[in-house]
Amino acid sequence: MNAKKPSESLIIMTELVLPNDTNLFGNLMGGRLMYWMDIAAALAGTKHSNAPVVTASVDNISFTNPIKLGNVVHIEAKVTRAFNTSMEVHLNVWGENIIKQYRYKSNEAYYTFVALDPDSKPRKIPSINPETEDESNLFESALRRRQLRLILGGKMKPGDAFELKALFMQA
Amino acid sequence: MNAKKPSESLIIMTELVLPNDTNLFGNLMGGRLMYWMDIAAALAGTKHSNAPVVTASVDNISFTNPIKLGNVVHIEAKVTRAFNTSMEVHLNVWGENIIKQYRYKSNEAYYTFVALDPDSKPRKIPSINPETEDESNLFESALRRRQLRLILGGKMKPGDAFELKALFMQA
Amino acid sequence: MNAKKPSESLIIMTELVLPNDTNLFGNLMGGRLMYWMDIAAALAGTKHSNAPVVTASVDNISFTNPIKLGNVVHIEAKVTRAFNTSMEVHLNVWGENIIKQYRYKSNEAYYTFVALDPDSKPRKIPSINPETEDESNLFESALRRRQLRLILGGKMKPGDAFELKALFMQA
Amino acid sequence: MNAKKPSESLIIMTELVLPNDTNLFGNLMGGRLMYWMDIAAALAGTKHSNAPVVTASVDNISFTNPIKLGNVVHIEAKVTRAFNTSMEVHLNVWGENIIKQYRYKSNEAYYTFVALDPDSKPRKIPSINPETEDESNLFESALRRRQLRLILGGKMKPGDAFELKALFMQA
Amino acid sequence: MNAKKPSESLIIMTELVLPNDTNLFGNLMGGRLMYWMDIAAALAGTKHSNAPVVTASVDNISFTNPIKLGNVVHIEAKVTRAFNTSMEVHLNVWGENIIKQYRYKSNEAYYTFVALDPDSKPRKIPSINPETEDESNLFESALRRRQLRLILGGKMKPGDAFELKALFMQA
Amino acid sequence: MNAKKPSESLIIMTELVLPNDTNLFGNLMGGRLMYWMDIAAALAGTKHSNAPVVTASVDNISFTNPIKLGNVVHIEAKVTRAFNTSMEVHLNVWGENIIKQYRYKSNEAYYTFVALDPDSKPRKIPSINPETEDESNLFESALRRRQLRLILGGKMKPGDAFELKALFMQA
Repeated sequence: MNAKKPSESLIIMTELVLPNDTNLFGNLMGGRLMYWMDIAAALAGTKHSNAPVVTASVDNISFTNPIKLGNVVHIEAKVTRAFNTSMEVHLNVWGENIIKQYRYKSNEAYYTFVALDPDSKPRKIPSINPETEDESNLFESALRRRQLRLILGGKMKPGDAFELKALFMQA
Repeated sequence: MNAKKPSESLIIMTELVLPNDTNLFGNLMGGRLMYWMDIAAALAGTKHSNAPVVTASVDNISFTNPIKLGNVVHIEAKVTRAFNTSMEVHLNVWGENIIKQYRYKSNEAYYTFVALDPDSKPRKIPSINPETEDESNLFESALRRRQLRLILGGKMKPGDAFELKALFMQA
Repeated sequence: MNAKKPSESLIIMTELVLPNDTNLFGNLMGGRLMYWMDIAAALAGTKHSNAPVVTASVDNISFTNPIKLGNVVHIEAKVTRAFNTSMEVHLNVWGENIIKQYRYKSNEAYYTFVALDPDSKPRKIPSINPETEDESNLFESALRRRQLRLILGGKMKPGDAFELKALFMQA
Repeated sequence: MNAKKPSESLIIMTELVLPNDTNLFGNLMGGRLMYWMDIAAALAGTKHSNAPVVTASVDNISFTNPIKLGNVVHIEAKVTRAFNTSMEVHLNVWGENIIKQYRYKSNEAYYTFVALDPDSKPRKIPSINPETEDESNLFESALRRRQLRLILGGKMKPGDAFELKALFMQA
Repeated sequence: MNAKKPSESLIIMTELVLPNDTNLFGNLMGGRLMYWMDIAAALAGTKHSNAPVVTASVDNISFTNPIKLGNVVHIEAKVTRAFNTSMEVHLNVWGENIIKQYRYKSNEAYYTFVALDPDSKPRKIPSINPETEDESNLFESALRRRQLRLILGGKMKPGDAFELKALFMQA
Repeated sequence: MNAKKPSESLIIMTELVLPNDTNLFGNLMGGRLMYWMDIAAALAGTKHSNAPVVTASVDNISFTNPIKLGNVVHIEAKVTRAFNTSMEVHLNVWGENIIKQYRYKSNEAYYTFVALDPDSKPRKIPSINPETEDESNLFESALRRRQLRLILGGKMKPGDAFELKALFMQA
């Protein structure tokens, strides 16, 4: 099983915000956006693993700028690192007013997926070989995010998360 | 502005998993579930604040048990703590096979919302008076989750998050 | 097959009225509400019978207060009485303006379901043991509603509907 | 305000049953069908009254033959009689397997609508002049159905419903 | 396999334009209309062929009058001519403001479908016997449209399209 | 008003085929695909013109390879040429089985849009400066497609379409 590049899993998704996607302020509902992000990320994970995947977890997401009715949502998803049977996908999300032509960052997120066999058992997936500096940074920091996920999921004690511990000590 | 009880904001939502909500394994897609959770949590936040709200952030969510096509999703949402103009909502999610009559925990989550004035400016909201032991625990731990959110959002340095720091030291 | 309590079949559903659910006045369309009520009632019927169910009939429904865009719909459904292979489900529906915090009755309804075997044949279902006074009243009056249903469905002659006949004589 | 013919309000609707419209047996859900029927009937009522309408009530509906996934739903809606500011719409619903080419009756129903002014107040509507024998029968029996509606809605005492009373006596 | 009349395949579809079907001007989106037209035409094709069908091609469509939110879409679809395993369906589309009661032509279109065997292979379909003058004209001109389709699909050289060639010469 | 490059209007859209998008063979319905294509093309047109647009026409589309349930749809849309107040958008559509990782051409299409002023009147739009050879070819052939559109829309006589006429003579 050969390692693959993050760019091989790249998914670019574009969606138009329609009335039913919005709240009473005419802004895209957070949940609707997470729905689109989940599909984009799942497709990136499937491209990397050549296997169907299920969402294992979603990291903390902050929503900064509201995306308005009639604006466009741009989502880019790419695998950052693989861990045996699971992988982390990084997402960048922008809104765009395509009439006035300005684009604004909406949010960034990390979704984790598990690849499955036809009998729904987790299966091994290729590892990742980062190419760009940005991809290398995401590859490195993936370990730290994974420790946090394990702690938050009750599967690791804070004291065993050496990378995170160092982060809290240093300040 | 009088403090309110968490139970005053309780929202109970029940949804049936239909074909278009599922992936190729016939399991509810994570993104579709986050969409329903966002609506349930936003309604709880609106009940507490008497004001329209927008999703500010979503904490780490792990999906444990897949929810199958034709099963039922139960969501319970309740405000845990208010912070001036924002509030944290705790969600419990179960799946249920209503034919074989067993219920299983799907996941737990924390969504944060900001209440808005008619001119879309953040507005003050009532504080929370927890009643049960469970509500008190959620109220206390809300501070720690907030520190983590601020760190992850780049708005606080890890060394200043005293509650979290203690957690990492103790082990 | 042991009798069951109405409360064991209770389903609580909460829905937010979105743009596509409304007519030109910004009010929830009656048909959209009946769709949600059908699902809530079918889930109550499935919980009671431990079997998949199909809608057999819907009794007369009057819509009193319109439910506005952005308001919340609350539906409570509970089995009132079982008749061999079919059962009657009672629904209470409220609208709520969760910002101004007032709730208003929208309507009440009775749906009837038949429980099915895996080969789509009707199957026996548990009987109902009402507990509260309200449940007892619904249990008793279920017979009268059933006679009306049979007459309206052309399966009973008006003269044989003794309960209903008495009702018309007495005035 | 001139009387109008029932045929002037005729609406013919054709829908294809898609996966998300069906229950676990692959049959059209009753609530989904009532949603389509509500739209067809509302359009017939709007054509008759030249005004927007809201659903006031739905009479007892029985579902006889399930309509399968991939089959076609045919709905015909026509106003039967007008009562000052409200009107009754009669619906006939068939399913059709368009591959094997047989059509089967699904159900029949009566929806009642109120026509509204721009300020949401009920407004007068034209009366109905039935043309065919079938339309005349529906026009006559509309009174009896109206009495039943008023009784069931608690707006008329059973003893005052002379038409219905006669029906129960005669047998 | 006996020839069939165009009228035997007639499908009449009526749809209400809801908020999510519209663009920022409150007009029905062209793509949403083509979706409904595809279903109406496919149903007409299935009725003619007694077999499931797949869309093979869509001819040039011009959209003349925008259809507004809350207006009604009327679609009529009928098979014009059959070609061994494929057939052409003609569609007429009107918008209607049912409150002000005027109807306007939206567009006209030709969709082509192939009928399939259970193993997804094209299958022979009945030929068409036009009855009215209008149906005869559509039947005749179907050949010319077919040549254009073959040229545009790269399956015929312009010089071999004798019917079309004559058309260009004559002027 | 400066000319713009085709690449400035590029829209890349990725959609997952869900159950409700498919016919009885589990293939994406043609109408659903045209709906997505219309949105992608409208976004490209809006990017080019900095103005809202409405669909004016769609050229002949052939559907070659069916796209299966669970496969991915890739759409790329780019403006080819502008004509005063309208512009032509070229679309390329592929299906992809992302598990087995092969991509297949689904179809190619040309949509035409008109840019509108706030008062819904057509407005002038920038012209196009093609850069690549492919873009130049599309720019040149746009004239011929326009003549065909005008003829098919009854706005030009075949004999006046010199470009097209030459095409038919030459063979």
